[in-house]
Amino acid sequence: MPQTVDLNCDMGESFGAWTLGNDAALMPFITSANVACGFHAGDPAVMRATVRAALAHGVAIGAHPGLPDLAGFGRRNLDISAAEAFDMTVYQLGALQAVAKAEGGRLHHLKPHGALYNMAATNAALAQAIAEAVYKVQPELVLYGLAGSELTQAGEKIGLRTAHEVFADRTYQANGTLTPRRQPDALISSADAAIAQVLRMVQHGTVRSQQGSDVAIRADTVCLHGDGAHALEFAQRLNHELRAAGVELQAGHPVPTK
Amino acid sequence: MPQTVDLNCDMGESFGAWTLGNDAALMPFITSANVACGFHAGDPAVMRATVRAALAHGVAIGAHPGLPDLAGFGRRNLDISAAEAFDMTVYQLGALQAVAKAEGGRLHHLKPHGALYNMAATNAALAQAIAEAVYKVQPELVLYGLAGSELTQAGEKIGLRTAHEVFADRTYQANGTLTPRRQPDALISSADAAIAQVLRMVQHGTVRSQQGSDVAIRADTVCLHGDGAHALEFAQRLNHELRAAGVELQAGHPVPTK
Amino acid sequence: MPQTVDLNCDMGESFGAWTLGNDAALMPFITSANVACGFHAGDPAVMRATVRAALAHGVAIGAHPGLPDLAGFGRRNLDISAAEAFDMTVYQLGALQAVAKAEGGRLHHLKPHGALYNMAATNAALAQAIAEAVYKVQPELVLYGLAGSELTQAGEKIGLRTAHEVFADRTYQANGTLTPRRQPDALISSADAAIAQVLRMVQHGTVRSQQGSDVAIRADTVCLHGDGAHALEFAQRLNHELRAAGVELQAGHPVPTK
Amino acid sequence: MPQTVDLNCDMGESFGAWTLGNDAALMPFITSANVACGFHAGDPAVMRATVRAALAHGVAIGAHPGLPDLAGFGRRNLDISAAEAFDMTVYQLGALQAVAKAEGGRLHHLKPHGALYNMAATNAALAQAIAEAVYKVQPELVLYGLAGSELTQAGEKIGLRTAHEVFADRTYQANGTLTPRRQPDALISSADAAIAQVLRMVQHGTVRSQQGSDVAIRADTVCLHGDGAHALEFAQRLNHELRAAGVELQAGHPVPTK
Repeated sequence: MPQTVDLNCDMGESFGAWTLGNDAALMPFITSANVACGFHAGDPAVMRATVRAALAHGVAIGAHPGLPDLAGFGRRNLDISAAEAFDMTVYQLGALQAVAKAEGGRLHHLKPHGALYNMAATNAALAQAIAEAVYKVQPELVLYGLAGSELTQAGEKIGLRTAHEVFADRTYQANGTLTPRRQPDALISSADAAIAQVLRMVQHGTVRSQQGSDVAIRADTVCLHGDGAHALEFAQRLNHELRAAGVELQAGHPVPTK
Repeated sequence: MPQTVDLNCDMGESFGAWTLGNDAALMPFITSANVACGFHAGDPAVMRATVRAALAHGVAIGAHPGLPDLAGFGRRNLDISAAEAFDMTVYQLGALQAVAKAEGGRLHHLKPHGALYNMAATNAALAQAIAEAVYKVQPELVLYGLAGSELTQAGEKIGLRTAHEVFADRTYQANGTLTPRRQPDALISSADAAIAQVLRMVQHGTVRSQQGSDVAIRADTVCLHGDGAHALEFAQRLNHELRAAGVELQAGHPVPTK
Repeated sequence: MPQTVDLNCDMGESFGAWTLGNDAALMPFITSANVACGFHAGDPAVMRATVRAALAHGVAIGAHPGLPDLAGFGRRNLDISAAEAFDMTVYQLGALQAVAKAEGGRLHHLKPHGALYNMAATNAALAQAIAEAVYKVQPELVLYGLAGSELTQAGEKIGLRTAHEVFADRTYQANGTLTPRRQPDALISSADAAIAQVLRMVQHGTVRSQQGSDVAIRADTVCLHGDGAHALEFAQRLNHELRAAGVELQAGHPVPTK
Repeated sequence: MPQTVDLNCDMGESFGAWTLGNDAALMPFITSANVACGFHAGDPAVMRATVRAALAHGVAIGAHPGLPDLAGFGRRNLDISAAEAFDMTVYQLGALQAVAKAEGGRLHHLKPHGALYNMAATNAALAQAIAEAVYKVQPELVLYGLAGSELTQAGEKIGLRTAHEVFADRTYQANGTLTPRRQPDALISSADAAIAQVLRMVQHGTVRSQQGSDVAIRADTVCLHGDGAHALEFAQRLNHELRAAGVELQAGHPVPTK
């Protein structure tokens, strides 16, 4: 049985007159798209166009809810309550469900965006609220979260299928967590090294930590970046090299038929 | 077979720290609630509380999408395209669907708010876009619109069930349209006269125009106001007098079971 | 020379169709008004009406900038940078300056709102950014901040006049800080005790801490609440009892002539 | 005495994570910059960066207030009252004044954006409200408006200096108005023809109408576009050819010294 992995990317992060990202070019090289839902980016027209493009490429569609912080692109931590996390997840998920319905599609997953993702990785109450929101609105969705995080744990506890997310261009610590961004060795700048790290994660289920040890990691889905000078080139290479190594690329659970 | 009519009221128009309306007090006297969806009023927490209250009272729940104009409460005409009307209806409808789902309920209808309602009453392209949005997202919903308007026509044409809305406190012209608000005789200030007008509409299907003629009108649902000094008292009286006259109060089409 | 103190209150926190607070009734009993500037509350029309009312009552006008979080009323901490704090203070201050100018008035002070106030009380970088914004835009303004906080220190260091703010209804710790709200003894519910605390602060420059010791505190201005069932009554009583005790009520530095 | 004209361009229309326009490249070729003020585009950080760049290039700085419609980029007509137009102009003007003050600069002009500009060109009540806002907040500003419009008339009537704006790439009617965009001959696609039209306007004070007649027009300032494939190239050419023809390029009234 072949190994499989999902390549996901944030999409639909334009807003009104402003364009961001390179969605059309990247779509052929990914297997799932996280679609911004209007709070940190995306507007109803952008959401529709993004869903349509994903359907055209057979890419699994996920809701990508964020904090209500357009000016900060949802990247600034906001001290929300668990109830607020629940409510904003339900709202944004529902909005994208309807857009997908109107386009003849269905959602496959949900992955929180930016600061909401980061907070839910370590804050059990927020993680549980988000998992509960997904479970109550569309329990067959796959919940994407940082591998081994509070979010994936909360999803599994409530009965959701989860996808553990790993990063190609981030280094890891001996305890399996990401090296914090403020540390100088947090990022992997070499594309070769990044691709090698993903291959190891997918094929062997381990990552070489900054301390030199091999750490077990579950790699269901790899986060690709949509912007940056080399984003497209890297996505193409990673897609190619994974397939060349016999890894099957697909969203971790069957994409629902329309 | 008894005559029936629906009493609808805009609900859930609070936002964040700001409270508006008298939802809890009015809920027992209405049969359907139009729930603001976040663009002109309402936020995800308010939406959830409003849906929960409606479910507790057996009141039919409707989406009440508005223009993206929080500062103007959705009351200022905005020169949107038909595509924008479609997209903003889909988005807001989906958001409320998910809130209802999370609370164990289902939607019954959709009624546009304020300037969107008014524009859709006379602009066929906007009317069609809204009807199409409803049809593509949840075709069993009832589309509420001004009696005899472009909106109800568009809904009927596309295959939706519609509810023709009438007003207790507005006067009508010989051609069946509302007297424009800028005219001095646009409003009916006497509660007795307003109730008499509703009874005539429901029991006889006619309204006495300002020109003195009786005009045929289809009165499926009566719009009640949620604010104003006498809103609650008037709702109570209208509810009581309609039932005393043998009129059954209920949302025009069966409320879906959960 | 008589003792003086300023009574300040947040004002102009309505927004669009939503009304909040009891500005008109409170205005006669305060000496300075902190006017919301559109980010957490207030809109341009509300700002104008509030400035006009303050001018009519001879109440000193202050900018009350908040976090860009309308849904959360600026009460939720947001992880902003110092540069962002600087920029949002400049922007909101300028907006209110222009409103005051158009009404024939001038600003007297600036007091950050809610979470921005709280963060600036303990975060030196944010405090410095806010002080710098005030200094660069209108250096004659008085900077209001929690007594003994990073904010008042930053203001004094840069050369601004400051007003140390105390609370009537909050208890204090032996080190002069407020008892955190999560502790059961954080609030003073008795109006008598609250007024007694203010009189002690103003007349003797001390506050009795929860540990029983008397702590020196500089009380330039007392924060009054604009909402709550007894806000108006308390403001009236405090105003009356301070004057009865020979304390002069006025904004801490001369209100600029128009 | 040499002929002079001003070349103005909308600037600072990025927002948060979204970048728009080519400000840095265009700045050397223009003489005045209209800086978005946060309602239709621009945020406090973008405003500061734009003001700083304009100061560095000796470009006159203008406020560019727009409708509160971020999603529509201020391009959709919104049915606002004159009081709302006044208030939103005061607010945005003040915000930019403070940004300029903090950067050591001063404003030179105000030009409404998009739909606000268009509505104020023909709606006398809105035009008067905007002119009044400018007059009350900073009466030495130059009010930019469509040549011969209600806006320039309102400005002149109230006592403001005005700059009549003309367009290089739009055709004109025999009555001096712009050919409506919906007409096929509304735009001039040839750069040569556009430059020739500007030269005629500046040197002879006339424009050749679509009906063939020469129409008198006052050309104080030419609107340059900041986006589009050839915007930069066209700005360079127009700047060069005007100077080659002996026309002095400068903002129509002296830029205030800091």
